[in-house]
Amino acid sequence: MPTTDDHGDRDIDVEEGHALYELMSTLRAVRRLRPDPIPDDVLARVLQAACWAPTGGNTQPWRVLVVTDPELKEGVAEIYRPEWERYVDFARKRSVAAGLDAAARAAQERTIAAGDHLAAHMGEAPVLLLFVADPARMAITDAKLDRVSMVGGASVDTAVQNAMLACRAEGLGCTLTTLHCHREDEVKALLDIPDSWATVALVPIGYPKGRGHGPITRQGPETMAYSDRFGRSWPVS
Amino acid sequence: MPTTDDHGDRDIDVEEGHALYELMSTLRAVRRLRPDPIPDDVLARVLQAACWAPTGGNTQPWRVLVVTDPELKEGVAEIYRPEWERYVDFARKRSVAAGLDAAARAAQERTIAAGDHLAAHMGEAPVLLLFVADPARMAITDAKLDRVSMVGGASVDTAVQNAMLACRAEGLGCTLTTLHCHREDEVKALLDIPDSWATVALVPIGYPKGRGHGPITRQGPETMAYSDRFGRSWPVS
Repeated sequence: MPTTDDHGDRDIDVEEGHALYELMSTLRAVRRLRPDPIPDDVLARVLQAACWAPTGGNTQPWRVLVVTDPELKEGVAEIYRPEWERYVDFARKRSVAAGLDAAARAAQERTIAAGDHLAAHMGEAPVLLLFVADPARMAITDAKLDRVSMVGGASVDTAVQNAMLACRAEGLGCTLTTLHCHREDEVKALLDIPDSWATVALVPIGYPKGRGHGPITRQGPETMAYSDRFGRSWPVS
Repeated sequence: MPTTDDHGDRDIDVEEGHALYELMSTLRAVRRLRPDPIPDDVLARVLQAACWAPTGGNTQPWRVLVVTDPELKEGVAEIYRPEWERYVDFARKRSVAAGLDAAARAAQERTIAAGDHLAAHMGEAPVLLLFVADPARMAITDAKLDRVSMVGGASVDTAVQNAMLACRAEGLGCTLTTLHCHREDEVKALLDIPDSWATVALVPIGYPKGRGHGPITRQGPETMAYSDRFGRSWPVS
């Protein structure tokens, strides 16, 4: 709890908190982007935000490719597109198998339509941000466990989230995609990425075609948070 | 670029942007925490911030354990402590091998001292947030590549970063740790986490003992961002 001495600072924090929560609660995936260029000063703030993110051992083992060259963007889009189509096919089959109701299917189809638009027009987005990371610079503590590793993401996706929040603050639309990983070798060959580096996240950004950001509906703490042990609801009533 | 019609919104975004960048640029790792309890309403906002984060296919495949029980916190601390000691030993040897200069070694020792404090007092932090995730609910696109997988983190660490930014806004100190993964089975047994779930990030939080947050020094876009292809500096001069 803040001491009395801290009071001045706390007032500032409250204002900042309101602004932060407004941004976070409206950071919707925006998949319909205008081709208008992004000014360098805006892009610089988005990239700086990414750089402020924490990384394991403060090694900052990631880099971000700011892809604006039309041919390279189209090259990435051509790699992405068939993977998106495969994913849609899979997602629709999974929904049928899971017996999703009509409302849930309709919501899924709206997301698919937006994703179709992104896949069709990814090459026209003004900027593709491709986050890459070097596993050799990371201490990945779950690399040897008998399950798929995830810990490496802690030194990259913190930066990705910072960049996306900055996009939101700057009025830019964005969405985090990872389907290109299925054909990582092709992406690396296209963009001169060294063998030892991994491609982690592809974030197309641009000013929204429509309304862009807005309220999001996601499960809140009553579903996502547990008290002390897995499965015990939070807060304890 | 915003249209004239959007002008009013843009004014708000500029204010929010300033607040966001102030928070991000001062989100230092805080490892010296006071044992004072965190009010439920503050904790609720931190947890809500995590829940707003994007996840692949919007499946929200993570959960967070809010550990406040003293015995359980001490149990986690006991698992963490020897792993921290092993890590420090490794980090010191690596610095010698890398021929780090005196200033860099001194900076490392300051971080180690703060980490020693965290390891010694982790059980006294008012709250340990343990983020867990279910790989079966994720489409991990790099799981079959011939390198360590990282993409799973994109559906968890976005939430972790949101929670840490919220901690910063609320005046709470925090730091992202992953060393417990070396002994994940013990953590899972202690907290009743099902076999199929993975433990991804452990974030001790509490009000700072000292100044807490403050300016951070990390590499910026001139080092971290590339233009179009890997290795080409951004912005193009």
